[in-house]
Amino acid sequence: MTTIAHRDADALALHLDEARRDYAGLKDRGLSLDLTRGKPSPEQLDLSAELLTLPGGRYTALDGTDCRNYGAPGDGLRELRDIFAPALQVPVDQLLAVGNSSLELMHDCLVHALLGTVPGAEGRWADQRVAFLCPVPGYDRHFALCERLGIDMIPVPMTDGGPDMGVVENLVRSDARIKGIWCVPKYSNPDGTCYSDETVRRLSTMETAAPDFRIFWDNAYAVHHLDGETGVGDILAACAEAGHPDRVFVFGSTSKITFAGAGVAFLGSSPANVAWWRANSTKRTIGPDKLNQLRHALFLKDTDGLRAHMRRHRRILAPKFETVDRVFSEQLGDTGLATWTRPKGGYFVALTVLDGCAREVVRLAAEAGIAVTPAGATHPHGNDPDDRVIRIGPSYPTLEELEQIAYGITVCVRLAGYERLTAQR
Amino acid sequence: MTTIAHRDADALALHLDEARRDYAGLKDRGLSLDLTRGKPSPEQLDLSAELLTLPGGRYTALDGTDCRNYGAPGDGLRELRDIFAPALQVPVDQLLAVGNSSLELMHDCLVHALLGTVPGAEGRWADQRVAFLCPVPGYDRHFALCERLGIDMIPVPMTDGGPDMGVVENLVRSDARIKGIWCVPKYSNPDGTCYSDETVRRLSTMETAAPDFRIFWDNAYAVHHLDGETGVGDILAACAEAGHPDRVFVFGSTSKITFAGAGVAFLGSSPANVAWWRANSTKRTIGPDKLNQLRHALFLKDTDGLRAHMRRHRRILAPKFETVDRVFSEQLGDTGLATWTRPKGGYFVALTVLDGCAREVVRLAAEAGIAVTPAGATHPHGNDPDDRVIRIGPSYPTLEELEQIAYGITVCVRLAGYERLTAQR
Repeated sequence: MTTIAHRDADALALHLDEARRDYAGLKDRGLSLDLTRGKPSPEQLDLSAELLTLPGGRYTALDGTDCRNYGAPGDGLRELRDIFAPALQVPVDQLLAVGNSSLELMHDCLVHALLGTVPGAEGRWADQRVAFLCPVPGYDRHFALCERLGIDMIPVPMTDGGPDMGVVENLVRSDARIKGIWCVPKYSNPDGTCYSDETVRRLSTMETAAPDFRIFWDNAYAVHHLDGETGVGDILAACAEAGHPDRVFVFGSTSKITFAGAGVAFLGSSPANVAWWRANSTKRTIGPDKLNQLRHALFLKDTDGLRAHMRRHRRILAPKFETVDRVFSEQLGDTGLATWTRPKGGYFVALTVLDGCAREVVRLAAEAGIAVTPAGATHPHGNDPDDRVIRIGPSYPTLEELEQIAYGITVCVRLAGYERLTAQR
Repeated sequence: MTTIAHRDADALALHLDEARRDYAGLKDRGLSLDLTRGKPSPEQLDLSAELLTLPGGRYTALDGTDCRNYGAPGDGLRELRDIFAPALQVPVDQLLAVGNSSLELMHDCLVHALLGTVPGAEGRWADQRVAFLCPVPGYDRHFALCERLGIDMIPVPMTDGGPDMGVVENLVRSDARIKGIWCVPKYSNPDGTCYSDETVRRLSTMETAAPDFRIFWDNAYAVHHLDGETGVGDILAACAEAGHPDRVFVFGSTSKITFAGAGVAFLGSSPANVAWWRANSTKRTIGPDKLNQLRHALFLKDTDGLRAHMRRHRRILAPKFETVDRVFSEQLGDTGLATWTRPKGGYFVALTVLDGCAREVVRLAAEAGIAVTPAGATHPHGNDPDDRVIRIGPSYPTLEELEQIAYGITVCVRLAGYERLTAQR
């Protein structure tokens, strides 16, 4: 980032004084606001109120299954998978509805690959030194899974169209211990990036030294549009066409569609990968919560119902993202102290401040009663080497709170930034 | 088993002829009945119909948590844990309500011990050759977990009061690769055995060569009484008193209380084990389905409510077990061809036939349209070396169906048994 208009020492001193005054004023407000995670707001949760009394008197799936009892279908209810198959770009026969969060499906895919033998593998990953590529900035919970399971992480920079594919291609071509890459292809967490067709093509066609390389395609925001309906290439079809049918696991969930935790998660992949998943998971589980799946199918009805439901979310969410952008523009627009993303969907804005300032901004915000996601959370091991990315999740607070939060953060950005520039002179 | 009264060749020939005629008659009935798993009957499921419209308009836990959203409590709702803590004999602070089946909690405990370091362990189990003791007859899904995860299985015979503790003590004292034992302490699957106080005492006090030895205490039938309310010793307290506080994981679920799959599971253990579980599972999951926990807490209300609910189950189940016992007694009582258990709770009857006959009985039953759990399922790798144990789960069929099934099985037992005795002469 270039810093402009601070060459003049007097002007900088003036800016710093002003920022200090504003920060003192901010602290005087005695705020207690939380922006740490991308949680749906109560108003959004109310959109799914009907789920609280569903399935009503009913308990039978379309195929006649008594959803109250043990037994098939272990793949999840067909009527629910039908709704989500188009959204997740997975043929319905290759799409499973299981569990209550995609995070656990990603975890379990890693576990089954560590302790079993994933299609194409020569043995258990647990017996090897294994690494994953981590596009940064990225999602802290992906990194936490790797950390917990002893998988090394190799950061790869993000570009406007996804991970830097030149870097990715070079790494996976030469290093067989690289077994996978984390991808949030649409409205990426935290920068809102959508993967370009070129990125999808190169991911699906690239040569990998590991025969058992996997793309963990976390399509968490597949239908979470804020502006239009951005599409991203069909990675599963692209991999199949490129002769690497087993290369990708697709994940999705209703955590930010209906209820987080009380929702349904999805796993889609090639027939061989799906069979491998089934072989492992049928030993682990008596099957998914079929009643909750029935509940969701009755509520959402069909893919159009899902789309209409997401438009109702958008009407609540879009003004929040607009507020953040407006306040950031008003307060930081001409300072040269920060840039930020204007995502067309998803749950996050990535705020990039001057190098070496992100931790200080978060610390200042916390002291002023605004809890922000820890700086560094967007990078493996919590280490953003440039210390400059802050994740902003505007969904939970009210518009009024958000106005205060966004303003408060800009004050902290100005204080930290001007202090930094002063120290550098 | 001693076989009586078949010394006379003519009498035996007569018995065999009669069994053959009865079997032909059985096949003529064209039955199509399934007894393969211990599934609750629709009538039992109807007892929990209220759950289909709960939590109603409500979504707030007693501690104020919005159960529709991300966030605490990751341990599960306190009001639900309060209901189950006495039943599972676990202090409520050491009892977690998580997931929809105890099977997956057992699986995940094994996975976390394989890929992490369980308290007391010197390293990952994945880096060692690990074995579990398997009391036989036992539960096929325990064995399937071991098989899938590469854990060796060592069978240990059951006695009237639990596993043969002399055998257990000798094995665990001398062999450090033995890391655990599977236990179904109350109304054991399939023989209905309840562990004696002596067994609980010896399990908790025995010396183990492995410092990270674990008892997997699958208390699946903790409140599933058919006759009185049998108690089993408090293993968690016993282990703590014996100076082995971290020795036991306690598991339970509502699969056979409310709805299988749409229920709630429980994990209880020492504070150190619980902290270890949390550290692992918070990486894996966004938390349990809190709404389903709220639904269950509202439905069951308290421990007395749970007890009353189980009495309603008993009124449906007890006559089914009585039917099996009556028909078996009538048809097999004086033949010397079989013995069977008369459990005071749980879901299963263990039928023991002449050595080498169990597979044949199951095959004959299948040919006559009665699907029975495969013989051998009660043993590791599906291998009952004496080929004599058959698991009978009377819960799902109607009384009328059960009458036919029980009779049908006795015909198969007679045919297989008399054929065997004839061949042996």
